[in-house]
Amino acid sequence: MTARLIVENARTTEGLAVDLIIEGDRIAAIGSGIAIGATDEQSRFDAAGGMLCPPFVDGHVHLDKTLIGLPFIPHIPGNSVAARIEAEKTLRRSLTMPVQERGGRLIEQIAAYGTLAVRSHVDIDTEIGLRGLEAVLSLKQSHGHLIDIETVAFPQSGVLRDPGTADLLDAAIAAGADLVGGLDPAGIDDDVTGHLDAIFAVAQRHGVGLDIHLHDGGSLGAFELRQIAGRTVALGLQGKVAVSHAFCLGELDEADFGRTAAALAEAGISIMTTAPGSVAMPPVKRLQAAGVRVFCGSDNIRDAWSPHGNGDMLERAGIVCDRQDFRADEDLALAYGLVTEVPAAVLGRRDPPLEAGSPADFVILPARSVAEAVAGRPLDRAVFRGGRLVAESGKLLEAFG
Amino acid sequence: MTARLIVENARTTEGLAVDLIIEGDRIAAIGSGIAIGATDEQSRFDAAGGMLCPPFVDGHVHLDKTLIGLPFIPHIPGNSVAARIEAEKTLRRSLTMPVQERGGRLIEQIAAYGTLAVRSHVDIDTEIGLRGLEAVLSLKQSHGHLIDIETVAFPQSGVLRDPGTADLLDAAIAAGADLVGGLDPAGIDDDVTGHLDAIFAVAQRHGVGLDIHLHDGGSLGAFELRQIAGRTVALGLQGKVAVSHAFCLGELDEADFGRTAAALAEAGISIMTTAPGSVAMPPVKRLQAAGVRVFCGSDNIRDAWSPHGNGDMLERAGIVCDRQDFRADEDLALAYGLVTEVPAAVLGRRDPPLEAGSPADFVILPARSVAEAVAGRPLDRAVFRGGRLVAESGKLLEAFG
Repeated sequence: MTARLIVENARTTEGLAVDLIIEGDRIAAIGSGIAIGATDEQSRFDAAGGMLCPPFVDGHVHLDKTLIGLPFIPHIPGNSVAARIEAEKTLRRSLTMPVQERGGRLIEQIAAYGTLAVRSHVDIDTEIGLRGLEAVLSLKQSHGHLIDIETVAFPQSGVLRDPGTADLLDAAIAAGADLVGGLDPAGIDDDVTGHLDAIFAVAQRHGVGLDIHLHDGGSLGAFELRQIAGRTVALGLQGKVAVSHAFCLGELDEADFGRTAAALAEAGISIMTTAPGSVAMPPVKRLQAAGVRVFCGSDNIRDAWSPHGNGDMLERAGIVCDRQDFRADEDLALAYGLVTEVPAAVLGRRDPPLEAGSPADFVILPARSVAEAVAGRPLDRAVFRGGRLVAESGKLLEAFG
Repeated sequence: MTARLIVENARTTEGLAVDLIIEGDRIAAIGSGIAIGATDEQSRFDAAGGMLCPPFVDGHVHLDKTLIGLPFIPHIPGNSVAARIEAEKTLRRSLTMPVQERGGRLIEQIAAYGTLAVRSHVDIDTEIGLRGLEAVLSLKQSHGHLIDIETVAFPQSGVLRDPGTADLLDAAIAAGADLVGGLDPAGIDDDVTGHLDAIFAVAQRHGVGLDIHLHDGGSLGAFELRQIAGRTVALGLQGKVAVSHAFCLGELDEADFGRTAAALAEAGISIMTTAPGSVAMPPVKRLQAAGVRVFCGSDNIRDAWSPHGNGDMLERAGIVCDRQDFRADEDLALAYGLVTEVPAAVLGRRDPPLEAGSPADFVILPARSVAEAVAGRPLDRAVFRGGRLVAESGKLLEAFG
């Protein structure tokens, strides 16, 4: 007989009392008062009036880069992106703990916060080849009980700058990566057309989408966004392309912003932001008003690029509020969407959360509204994955560590 | 006989093994290996290799404003500072839970994070009179076992705009407030000279310092800073004046920044920043290089001004890093100073922390360096106040709640 769990005394984000009946790894039923008559469960969990939330989705991580699990390594400053890329490669060569272990520890940390799906970029270059990807693909197996992983074949050292990388991107998709990545066509490869030709060709050949890192600022970045949008439409990839960071969107005048946002909307391109603190960020409401989806990711979590970060997406929603001056309930709810339903849609997650028949993946936390959850971001969370309680109070239960 | 506690197996921020012998509320001895021979203690605490830190100091809170303890109250948007001031007053009239209780809960929350000293601004206006101040002064007694409180008589509704306030500020200092506050001489009172005349007169009469809220931006804010600096020097108040926020310092050109910073340095004026996310912030390193002390505060923690904030000063140091792009160890250590020794100096705290003879107030947390503490900001902290363990893992022990 299938294991049967009852979660009682939860509340919806609208404050309605709700119970869940879970069979195996799925929600069998959800509704008010349904726990009372039930008697054939194997176990019960009292949500104590806590709010039932869909799992958090982290739209941008680097599972292969993290140094979690190692003693703290001081950041090695780099004066340019190119210098930092080299510094990271030097560090990478010296690490004795494999990606499988470091990435696994990061997954355990973020799952404990309630993040149950991620999009991970994975470095592909002519030195590491596909080894990083293979390690992350193996994490899909070893840590599938905690998290769903989508992978992006990410040319961290450039494509044209590191000849042979385009073929490796092709091989990466063939090996199981879900999307093709890219990186600053102007800033890194010095060739917007050449870079985009290369990565869109791989995407077209395999019928997959793209997620492109773009740090290039101002009108140059905006030009690149419009170039990406044009190719997306020309190749019929609408809805399958994202651009990560796109700081430039926070730096444009009204006219340049308007035509760039319109191009992104027409191409169905989504924008990923970490809500960075020291550079401009994409204006969330203006982009949404223009029809552009915005979603959040953690990006670097204790790696060669930054010693900071913890992967808590509820905290990330709070950071969005800080950067965008969101204080009213409706704005806090908007930020919450950037770490839940929007990235879930971008990642193409099919099952609607918290419905009968959907996976029993959810978070219960002590708040009476989404706004209160974002403002207070309580760590006191119960995280359920595949019908099992896997974490409490920000810590993974021992059986799942 | 005085209670005797031994804390063993701690490490200094430099990584050296260290034990502490505590007698009553003071550190009797601190050093390596001193716990071994000791036998007459009443209790022992194993720091398990954790790093010994001075307590955090929050240089800017509003104990009278917080809504902590009440059900979550949605933020009431205001289009102007004046509108927000009115909205806050309307809300204040409706609150049934007294300042004593709300402020007490906030103290309990922040003490659990390891903050053992605060500077609290307290609203003084012709409606509330000195009642808010009296409540906060009573918190010094009721919550002195957890925290040291310095108070600023803060004219939240302006001084000239709300006639009678200057006399109330005078009465507030007579009643026990430690410093005179101020608020946007141009932006709120529309009279830089008149506002500064009024508040400096009160400070001079009582021989106390000032801490002035300044949100006015750009060259206007810089002008006001230089006006404040000029009066500070003229009245011999060097080292006793702080300006809170001073967003304008992040908006000036090289020349205007240079002469303003030089004026601040000459007057010994300290700058308080929350490292805000949606407005310019004072550039920390440039100000320090010019000889200006910069320190941090939380400002609003779930009140009428913002639903956000939790009072964790180690997280605040991380926010400084995010806003100032601090990644290297030495920069993280600089941010750590903004929540420890700099505000301790600004608040005029006399005892050097972590020395024999000093109060037994400290925090032990799992990190090997200050940089690791700031990057990871572990919640797993043991907080000692007056020689007693008062909080663990971010929660106050029951006896102290």
